[in-house]
Amino acid sequence: MSESRLPEEGAVPLDDRGLAYGDGLFETVLVRDGEALLWEAHLARLARGCRALGLPMPARDRLDSLPGQAGEGLRVLKLILTRGSGGRGYLPPAEPSPRLRWQAAPFSPQPHRWRAGVRVRLCRLRLGLQPALAGLKHLNRLENVLARQEWQDPEVAEGLLCDSDGWLVEATCMNLFWRRDGRLETPRLDRCGVAGTLRAALLEALPIAEVDAGPEVLLDAEAAWLGNSLQGVWPLARLDDARGSELKRWAPGEAHRSLQAEAHRLLGYSPSMAS
Amino acid sequence: MSESRLPEEGAVPLDDRGLAYGDGLFETVLVRDGEALLWEAHLARLARGCRALGLPMPARDRLDSLPGQAGEGLRVLKLILTRGSGGRGYLPPAEPSPRLRWQAAPFSPQPHRWRAGVRVRLCRLRLGLQPALAGLKHLNRLENVLARQEWQDPEVAEGLLCDSDGWLVEATCMNLFWRRDGRLETPRLDRCGVAGTLRAALLEALPIAEVDAGPEVLLDAEAAWLGNSLQGVWPLARLDDARGSELKRWAPGEAHRSLQAEAHRLLGYSPSMAS
Repeated sequence: MSESRLPEEGAVPLDDRGLAYGDGLFETVLVRDGEALLWEAHLARLARGCRALGLPMPARDRLDSLPGQAGEGLRVLKLILTRGSGGRGYLPPAEPSPRLRWQAAPFSPQPHRWRAGVRVRLCRLRLGLQPALAGLKHLNRLENVLARQEWQDPEVAEGLLCDSDGWLVEATCMNLFWRRDGRLETPRLDRCGVAGTLRAALLEALPIAEVDAGPEVLLDAEAAWLGNSLQGVWPLARLDDARGSELKRWAPGEAHRSLQAEAHRLLGYSPSMAS
Repeated sequence: MSESRLPEEGAVPLDDRGLAYGDGLFETVLVRDGEALLWEAHLARLARGCRALGLPMPARDRLDSLPGQAGEGLRVLKLILTRGSGGRGYLPPAEPSPRLRWQAAPFSPQPHRWRAGVRVRLCRLRLGLQPALAGLKHLNRLENVLARQEWQDPEVAEGLLCDSDGWLVEATCMNLFWRRDGRLETPRLDRCGVAGTLRAALLEALPIAEVDAGPEVLLDAEAAWLGNSLQGVWPLARLDDARGSELKRWAPGEAHRSLQAEAHRLLGYSPSMAS
């Protein structure tokens, strides 16, 4: 979202609490020809975040007007909702005036990753436990930024994160799924991590169990995937440790197609693009 | 820093990483007639933060020019340093162009709290463990915002925070000190919390041990204090549990004066104001 940025709604003043404290939420939404994909799931997560932070939810008609302003073709619409200005230090104002800002940019998924799968590595950074914020897409994302700085190799598509107790949580910007003994599983996200909207939709559509599992579970997995509402679903082709040494390989094939097909149906990605 | 805001250096665009991810640092500095108190400690913490986040430290002469622009009398100068715009999602640009922004406002300490002490309560929220960010004054402060929302009673001056393992860490915007069996102690801050500049200066000036301790340590403390580089040092007069029930009282008196006197000397607060 840099050079190709489209017209956007304003900036924020220096005293905005979103800037000062990360006191706010965001959503990144796939929009195709003015229609938002998984829109209800995005609004549901935004509403959950508003309840957790004590923010009023923006009016539904204002939110609904945004995808239509994102432009033609495939776009990513980013919404940022902050608590606005004011308050006494960390104490928010009793009646905040939240700021809703947005920007949109062209988006292209990476179909070669759908087909060939991706190489990922385990990150060294452990996510801190914070049940009060778990699952939310809030503006405190320094852990993700630090984790994403752990590798520069463009062959490595993502990094997997564990929490401070050692349980698998997610990748830096995608959710994680695997199949073992024929069962689909994904990490529980009630202590940290971001509960993606694609993940939410897949949990509704398929029998996926939310579990506590360490990274060793992946060594026994018949298949594993990363997914989010923009990129769709990438099969894992290779898992490295935090030093870049190979731990496991998978041959993306038929075993990987069912979860991916369901995800791409939800996102309107054509099956022919992935084959 | 609301109605009385002084001229400030700019706002930030919507794609600034400080807003998007809290990818940045801040400092709030006490300035008296253009001279910053504990300035070297503020710059040292900012430099530590820059190293941890992989940010270039702003030029010293630029930073040194700011306190002189804060205005006459007693002021609070707030600096915000973000990684600037750009990057691919969480991955920062290889050569970031950080944004340094500042604002200044009049400041008045609360001498009645120096004299009479304050009532504080234990917060329910537990701070997540994150050694990679511990001690830094970064822009991810949602935990502090949530904790500060746990009480509205203006009689309660601060809330004490434990980490997810149950150890005492700090108050929402101040550091914590106590004396037991004649020894001065303060929580270790190597897993979470903000290492205040007044705390750093007091650790250099006085024999204060950094320890792991649960909140029960306060029940045995002869004296306890909160402090930061703006407010100076408040003796604790009363500690409540998270429901507001009294756990302990102290009578602020001679036992509280030595730590406070040292802190107020460092901040240039007149001893007569506290007596």
